[in-house]
Amino acid sequence: MEQVSTNRSHGGTQGVYTHQSATTGTPMTFSVFVPDHEPGQRLPVLWYLSGLTCTHANVTEKGEYRAACARAGVIFIAPDTSPRGDDVPDDAAYDFGKGAGFYVDATQEPWSAQFRMRSYIEQELPALVAQHFPVDMDRQGITGHSMGGHGALTIGLRNPDRFRSVSAFSPIVSPLNCPWGNKALTGYLGPDKAAWREYDACALIEDGARLPALLVDQGEADNFLHEQLKTGLLVMACRKAGIPATIRMHPGYDHSYYFISSFMADHVAWHAERLKA
Amino acid sequence: MEQVSTNRSHGGTQGVYTHQSATTGTPMTFSVFVPDHEPGQRLPVLWYLSGLTCTHANVTEKGEYRAACARAGVIFIAPDTSPRGDDVPDDAAYDFGKGAGFYVDATQEPWSAQFRMRSYIEQELPALVAQHFPVDMDRQGITGHSMGGHGALTIGLRNPDRFRSVSAFSPIVSPLNCPWGNKALTGYLGPDKAAWREYDACALIEDGARLPALLVDQGEADNFLHEQLKTGLLVMACRKAGIPATIRMHPGYDHSYYFISSFMADHVAWHAERLKA
Repeated sequence: MEQVSTNRSHGGTQGVYTHQSATTGTPMTFSVFVPDHEPGQRLPVLWYLSGLTCTHANVTEKGEYRAACARAGVIFIAPDTSPRGDDVPDDAAYDFGKGAGFYVDATQEPWSAQFRMRSYIEQELPALVAQHFPVDMDRQGITGHSMGGHGALTIGLRNPDRFRSVSAFSPIVSPLNCPWGNKALTGYLGPDKAAWREYDACALIEDGARLPALLVDQGEADNFLHEQLKTGLLVMACRKAGIPATIRMHPGYDHSYYFISSFMADHVAWHAERLKA
Repeated sequence: MEQVSTNRSHGGTQGVYTHQSATTGTPMTFSVFVPDHEPGQRLPVLWYLSGLTCTHANVTEKGEYRAACARAGVIFIAPDTSPRGDDVPDDAAYDFGKGAGFYVDATQEPWSAQFRMRSYIEQELPALVAQHFPVDMDRQGITGHSMGGHGALTIGLRNPDRFRSVSAFSPIVSPLNCPWGNKALTGYLGPDKAAWREYDACALIEDGARLPALLVDQGEADNFLHEQLKTGLLVMACRKAGIPATIRMHPGYDHSYYFISSFMADHVAWHAERLKA
């Protein structure tokens, strides 16, 4: 692992790091904010998965999480959204290929060798992080935005032993039921929709996965709400399954970091409460 | 004035606007954050002047001021740092020409027609803002970063009737005594250093200008501190003049928005206290 940069910020250290990933076969970049802490102390960690077109940089620059993380003593980790590099296949559209890994392990060509963001987030990156940062891996939470909200929900639902807390901003709640999801999962996983269910938050809940609690914030002026995000499907799935979900709709707010940053401190505090020692 | 964009954020509206400036003869873009307020209510306003290479966008995206401004009920305005456009003269370096207006009215060719950021900030933009936003122009504060810290200090010192509160992040405190200042003021104002004094915070104080109070934050790991910023000169000037200045040095912090954002809420609260009705 190489350090790209570190900057002191909000009583902690904001770093950016890169490493050669065995999972994707490419270099991968991610950011980590570590609040000041006692020597030897291990801190809970909040993972943040980003949305379409983003790298680690978007939330690192615009997410406004550092003040809240420093206050709560929570480490914040932001991975990239796909493998990168000249030899990585891509698609001309913004919603498939680079910047659009959808947190799946692709099975279709030419994607399957490198587009393995599920394994990267579930296995390789946590192992690397545990080795290099003062994290308490028994206290992990996960959140994300849009495609990354989908990532947080599905990874959280599939790994209840690893994540004590799961939340999301404007998540894609059911790739089975939206154009972004249909396009990406057809491309990465093939047309058999049975293979998609482990990458669909609503289907995972329908198939028996559970969360002890859930916090979701969604802007009502989000121009992707009705066609792509379909928050209502998640509301129904949680109700049916008895998952105690707080799903807040915010009049006037859109899909941007102006929205995310407005509610970031709430999410950090919500996770911190659940990640207490 | 045209609205470029508005986004709901932190219980307020973050807008970006553009207008044809009579002062610079070019279109000028600026951002305004307006917290929610009662109909007819007029709010105090905090001006933020940006540093070299920046536009309105840097602080708007990375400054983390909205939560604090919404809490305090303060409007936040971020202008650009120079005229822009294909017919605006420029210099190959980052520290002169476009993005480097230094908040002066240039007297030298080819700059004098358009590089008039002093008049733009002191006269044209306030008049435009007063016309279009719910501002209480009797309650104005000003701050800024680096070159914009220089702008905030000099404009604040020259206009004590307009600004009740002045602060700065990592300001250039004396263009007379640093390479950035020497290059820019020679280029914009000519070699006669007598003409520079009204654009030099330390010289203005030496020549009799006063502030009722001053807040400055400066990172000790700022790589421009010793050659360009020279905070110590401002400390001495304030001490000699009896200006009650709080000038805080922060170990480990650098010149970036990771530093600015760490202390932004402090500055907003400090101004809000002084801008109370």
